[in-house]
Amino acid sequence: MYLYSNLIGTFVFNQNLKIREKILFSKSDLEKYYVLLIENKVLDTEKKLIEKFKNIKNLRQEPDDKIMHIIYRELSQFQKEYYENNVYVTKLQIKESVTPDLLIIQTSNSINELKKSINLLSKRLREWYSYVLPEVEDTLTDNLSFAERIIKDSTEKLMKDFNLKITMGQDLKKDDLDSIKSLASTILDIEKQKQKKELYLEKLMKKTCPNLEAVAGYLTGAKLLALAGSLRNMVMMPSSTIQLLGAEKALFMHMIKGTKSPKHGVIIEHSLVQKVDKKDKGKASRALADKISLAAKLDFFKGKFIGDKLRKEVEARFK
Amino acid sequence: MYLYSNLIGTFVFNQNLKIREKILFSKSDLEKYYVLLIENKVLDTEKKLIEKFKNIKNLRQEPDDKIMHIIYRELSQFQKEYYENNVYVTKLQIKESVTPDLLIIQTSNSINELKKSINLLSKRLREWYSYVLPEVEDTLTDNLSFAERIIKDSTEKLMKDFNLKITMGQDLKKDDLDSIKSLASTILDIEKQKQKKELYLEKLMKKTCPNLEAVAGYLTGAKLLALAGSLRNMVMMPSSTIQLLGAEKALFMHMIKGTKSPKHGVIIEHSLVQKVDKKDKGKASRALADKISLAAKLDFFKGKFIGDKLRKEVEARFK
Repeated sequence: MYLYSNLIGTFVFNQNLKIREKILFSKSDLEKYYVLLIENKVLDTEKKLIEKFKNIKNLRQEPDDKIMHIIYRELSQFQKEYYENNVYVTKLQIKESVTPDLLIIQTSNSINELKKSINLLSKRLREWYSYVLPEVEDTLTDNLSFAERIIKDSTEKLMKDFNLKITMGQDLKKDDLDSIKSLASTILDIEKQKQKKELYLEKLMKKTCPNLEAVAGYLTGAKLLALAGSLRNMVMMPSSTIQLLGAEKALFMHMIKGTKSPKHGVIIEHSLVQKVDKKDKGKASRALADKISLAAKLDFFKGKFIGDKLRKEVEARFK
Repeated sequence: MYLYSNLIGTFVFNQNLKIREKILFSKSDLEKYYVLLIENKVLDTEKKLIEKFKNIKNLRQEPDDKIMHIIYRELSQFQKEYYENNVYVTKLQIKESVTPDLLIIQTSNSINELKKSINLLSKRLREWYSYVLPEVEDTLTDNLSFAERIIKDSTEKLMKDFNLKITMGQDLKKDDLDSIKSLASTILDIEKQKQKKELYLEKLMKKTCPNLEAVAGYLTGAKLLALAGSLRNMVMMPSSTIQLLGAEKALFMHMIKGTKSPKHGVIIEHSLVQKVDKKDKGKASRALADKISLAAKLDFFKGKFIGDKLRKEVEARFK
């Protein structure tokens, strides 16, 4: 007599490997038993059947390829149940595959896309507003303060503030000016959303990847994660790869056309790399990438928080 | 004795072509005299000096290259005033160059860019939300109703509405879900701005290019204007060029690589071209482009409104 359990249920086979008795799982059973099956622990249904039948061999503990093959054939009539349970288990697995680092990556990418939208619309706003006061458009280079000023201040006030006695711009009608201002306020709305996302990203990073956050900063750290694809991927990477994340194009140009090899990817945005002299940027990037790699490993394997120490170490090297 | 006026002022020269007397213009004078100078009419300052000096020759009326050359040299000491007045006049000219069709073009382009932003962010929203309910993300294909639903409805309600008993998605924490919803609401804000701009564009088109609006519709009409660069440019174009506005890439591919020649640019978006059979699309585009060209000319030269008639004519041909 053999006992065998899988996602369908628990089965007792007789000497000829025909099904003698069975307990099929409902989905709620399966949800309960799924982990026990993976960890190869005894299920309640198995206990019940072991008690009922004496001299029974548990095939999950002592698998035998030949016997398993016949058993699988015997079980094929339960294919439909099997199919449904399989789909259910896959869904459970997918459910579990959403790890916190994926939220970080989505947030980081959304920040990039919000920035892109802001730049696209700001370019339009500037061109449009240059019909009103081209001189101001030239002077106020920051997109956001530009949008804020043209919403808040009248044309006269702006002319006074920028010391303009005559403008090349036209006096637009109120309707036409309002339409420009309304575009400006949408740009500011998108900016607000971007700021919200940055706050949220910082919180996520501090919770999920505290070491990485401390070493790389939340924005650069999240960008590196997004480029790596996941924290798991990042942990598998050598630090020299982390150093070049975001410089893929330059790297391929180097490999194909023999241009200069890149020394840093998005890591260049890090305040430490920004601070050092141009000739040391490569070295600083390498040292930083080492620490980032270590920090990512600590975060992935739930190690201690030593991010501050790591950061201080690399900062001390480049004083 | 000679009398001469330009942007600097009115001058009387003696026989040796030295300045005998002068009246320099202030900027307010110039604003008054600017048009009269262009139209070669007599200015008040000239009248005054003509009365004072007898036997005077007005050089603006009878220019003589040799004398003018010496006079220009004599006037060079006033270069600074001249420079300032010249800049002023240029500013006046630039002021006048902002025509209403430029506002249409800016609005039309801004609508395109708002659309681009909506699509970019919606793609992100869908990817992100697929961690929660991947099944809904697949079914609700319209970006805006997708954003609306996930803001309004709870996960439970959506699962019920879409007949889902189990989801592959994860139960995110409230914070994480709120961050997704907040991105969705920004997308809806941008959509509202887009709708505002469309209303404004329709108003502008009806006012500035009523014929073009009636024949091409305000969205397609404005796109054609934007591609042409200005109403003036569009009037100068043969209708076959208008027909292909927006198909430049295909046209160059045709010219360089001998691919099939394009039959329509953005004109294909027009409801008339959309309605006819595939084999007639080229013909309909050509007929429509003819009428659009005519309508643009009528609008540019402030002709009568016969847009409705033009549209009916071309519609009758393709019933």
